[in-house]
Amino acid sequence: MTSPDSSAPLGVFDSGVGGLTVVRALRELLPNESIIYLGDTARVPYGSKSPDTIRRFSVEDTQFLVSHGVKAVVVACNTATAHALPVLQATFRVPVIGVLEPGVEATLADDSCERVGIIGTAGTIRSSAYQYALAMRKPDLLIHAIATPLLVPFVEEGWTDHPALKSVLKEYLKPLLDKGMDTLVLGCTHYPLLIPVLKRMLGNKVRLVDSASTCAAHTQRMLEEKGLLRTAKGKPTLEIYLTDLAEQAEALAKRFLGTEFGKVKKATL
Amino acid sequence: MTSPDSSAPLGVFDSGVGGLTVVRALRELLPNESIIYLGDTARVPYGSKSPDTIRRFSVEDTQFLVSHGVKAVVVACNTATAHALPVLQATFRVPVIGVLEPGVEATLADDSCERVGIIGTAGTIRSSAYQYALAMRKPDLLIHAIATPLLVPFVEEGWTDHPALKSVLKEYLKPLLDKGMDTLVLGCTHYPLLIPVLKRMLGNKVRLVDSASTCAAHTQRMLEEKGLLRTAKGKPTLEIYLTDLAEQAEALAKRFLGTEFGKVKKATL
Repeated sequence: MTSPDSSAPLGVFDSGVGGLTVVRALRELLPNESIIYLGDTARVPYGSKSPDTIRRFSVEDTQFLVSHGVKAVVVACNTATAHALPVLQATFRVPVIGVLEPGVEATLADDSCERVGIIGTAGTIRSSAYQYALAMRKPDLLIHAIATPLLVPFVEEGWTDHPALKSVLKEYLKPLLDKGMDTLVLGCTHYPLLIPVLKRMLGNKVRLVDSASTCAAHTQRMLEEKGLLRTAKGKPTLEIYLTDLAEQAEALAKRFLGTEFGKVKKATL
Repeated sequence: MTSPDSSAPLGVFDSGVGGLTVVRALRELLPNESIIYLGDTARVPYGSKSPDTIRRFSVEDTQFLVSHGVKAVVVACNTATAHALPVLQATFRVPVIGVLEPGVEATLADDSCERVGIIGTAGTIRSSAYQYALAMRKPDLLIHAIATPLLVPFVEEGWTDHPALKSVLKEYLKPLLDKGMDTLVLGCTHYPLLIPVLKRMLGNKVRLVDSASTCAAHTQRMLEEKGLLRTAKGKPTLEIYLTDLAEQAEALAKRFLGTEFGKVKKATL
């Protein structure tokens, strides 16, 4: 087997368009990289589904990216990372990295962190992947994780400053605040859009950990180590594939990516 | 082609488990019928997806039921009915009926109805299927339809009496109330679980139309006309297939069906 070509694009996938928050961070840190993004919008969300189904979908997503010649794959979805990362790494020859390890590293980057709250989809929380990974590194950490399935629908509805959202957040966060959390891990790639409302609600008492930028730093390090950083001079490209082209998904994609982009292509898995 | 066997089961499908509210109504009205239910929980929801994808999924769902020998198919999903009913009726030989026509009939059953509000998923509302069908029958009707994508997540989270839900409903219903609606069509099979909170909010000013019971009555009439009512003496059966067996879906299924049931089976489409 020949080693991957450094001029090949990076592959990134998510269950939907939330993973574009990771693409945004990747483009800021690695502006010379070409990227192929796959959002499985026909089967979104993954967060409420079973581990078996999440693994099957994730393998199909990665297969799509690999068949498009990517040099590495970033799993920009917490639920897919939590349930499928080991099987993806065992199945595919290209390097595969997820968002969970970067999230754990970002959480522990502040030594004073003692009481951690984690929010995510039902699938991510039920996997206990964050809880295990944090407890392995810092056994005396107090960890409290809760599934917050209503947050993605609010982000997708665009109601990120609505009184109803604040009421939902208050209910979800109460047990975490009662336990005196000093750090809140945003364990879903949709949640960066909630940072403004969370900051207003939590003030400076609670540090918010978003894995997107740490994930981009991980990706950079991995590409460096493997000699896969793109050195080609031509303009890098960004291709976005979605498995379903609903109008709403394209509009959302712009919000998550924070910029305009070319025509979205339809992917069939 | 031989005509279908009246002792065969009725097939019912939905994108998820919401369609079990229709199964509940069918079992009340037609207690001697056997039923095979398919919930496409691996790809739920359909309501946010494109017409093409909804049609493709609906054809696969119907194919599954037909291959299990059903004598007729009930599309217990407003989004699938709105986008796929004509293609299903053109593709399959067994009778196929949806929830939309029964909803329209139930709406117009009260002659005094003048100003109708319709709530449903983005897919159902964007199809304009309810709006057209109502306007065709009663051209002077005032119709106002709005997509209410946050309601299904609240029902699935079980927060059907939470202040946040009331705040969401207030926001969604305001334009309908401002227009003086006298009738509200619940255009999604999840919404019957919101009837108590809606009644408390709207009082007796607004009539609520739920298509589940009218759909059961339609099904009965169709089976009678085609000589397909089950006359066999043996105990009727209920089989539930889901394309994904997440814990949450099974718990939800019990809430929608309103009763216990046997082991859910995994369907692969």
